[in-house]
Amino acid sequence: MRLRNVKNAVDIVEKSPYVIKEEKKYRGKFRELFKNDNPINIEIGMGKGDFVIGMALLYPNINFIGIEKYESVMVRAIQKLENMDIPNLRLIRMDASLIADVFDREIDTIYLNFSDPWPKVRHAKRRLTSPNFLENYENIFKGNPHIIQKTDNTGLFAYSLMSLSKNGYILENISLDLANTDIPNVCTEYEKKFMSMGVKINYCDAVKYEKK
Amino acid sequence: MRLRNVKNAVDIVEKSPYVIKEEKKYRGKFRELFKNDNPINIEIGMGKGDFVIGMALLYPNINFIGIEKYESVMVRAIQKLENMDIPNLRLIRMDASLIADVFDREIDTIYLNFSDPWPKVRHAKRRLTSPNFLENYENIFKGNPHIIQKTDNTGLFAYSLMSLSKNGYILENISLDLANTDIPNVCTEYEKKFMSMGVKINYCDAVKYEKK
Repeated sequence: MRLRNVKNAVDIVEKSPYVIKEEKKYRGKFRELFKNDNPINIEIGMGKGDFVIGMALLYPNINFIGIEKYESVMVRAIQKLENMDIPNLRLIRMDASLIADVFDREIDTIYLNFSDPWPKVRHAKRRLTSPNFLENYENIFKGNPHIIQKTDNTGLFAYSLMSLSKNGYILENISLDLANTDIPNVCTEYEKKFMSMGVKINYCDAVKYEKK
Repeated sequence: MRLRNVKNAVDIVEKSPYVIKEEKKYRGKFRELFKNDNPINIEIGMGKGDFVIGMALLYPNINFIGIEKYESVMVRAIQKLENMDIPNLRLIRMDASLIADVFDREIDTIYLNFSDPWPKVRHAKRRLTSPNFLENYENIFKGNPHIIQKTDNTGLFAYSLMSLSKNGYILENISLDLANTDIPNVCTEYEKKFMSMGVKINYCDAVKYEKK
């Protein structure tokens, strides 16, 4: 994502009341942070935040945590949040690979929206649906692992479907043209742009059931 | 498929040495018909036959059976075969819903190419990857059920991926743009036309493994 640099992005991120600092302290205790027993859903790679902010507004009885690696990107979401009070929303600035150090059996759903496709085969391990990432996610879920992905990238989408299927997920819902379904959908910044260009969005909702 | 009527299509189909008559007689004994122990793969909905003829020529050590409901369509394949001698190819004129009456634990792979998408929800049961068809196929396979599908229709493709996944199949290989992969591919008549129009072909190779 190319962005003009926001001055003092690091400072702005650190000072935002939405941003969880020392996130590892809350491992296994994120319910206490939200002060309720509602489900906790996370978006890995929240970018400029439109999706996670929109979802938090749409579903006040679900807690949302947006995760983003780069301050320079996250700062855009924080600017949007400046005059908003959304108690069921928090943000964490971190690398997705460390996710199992931060959450412990407390997440309901992972959202992956327009993740980096890492198109080169030698970078496949970096894709957020690669077997190593899926293994990493395994213990952060409270119940059955549940991942919802949206992407315009057909290579990443095909890869994700295979990887999810081979790693025990059942593909509960799939669309190769999300706009033409009745699946409720909060658009990301990318998505609005893509849709206006006529690009079709791929969607997958996958659940890994306990072995019987 | 709109075709000008071939005169005497029923006659031509009946007289072709490629066409198996009284197919139920061979149930469980198709290996005897081919006089070898090579794998037997079938294409359900062979249309005008380019795919199944091409595959039989490409893989002489695999037996192929093309299945087609309509004489008026199958006759086009028979006309192509008139001066060809392909010992590892046979055709059956039948309705796919009767497949379990014809084969018994002797098929390796089912190919489904550009099957009728039956886009209306109330017709979903007629799709060749619907749960009732998948159940029908179950006992025709010699080993692990194995289905390979190609389609330009994104609705049918999404439906098939879900149906296969929910019915125990693992999605071993998927592409949303078959032409840009190194998967070996014999084109159907439709496919050539679609490709020349820039339409992308969806591909899925799915296997149902024995429960451990």
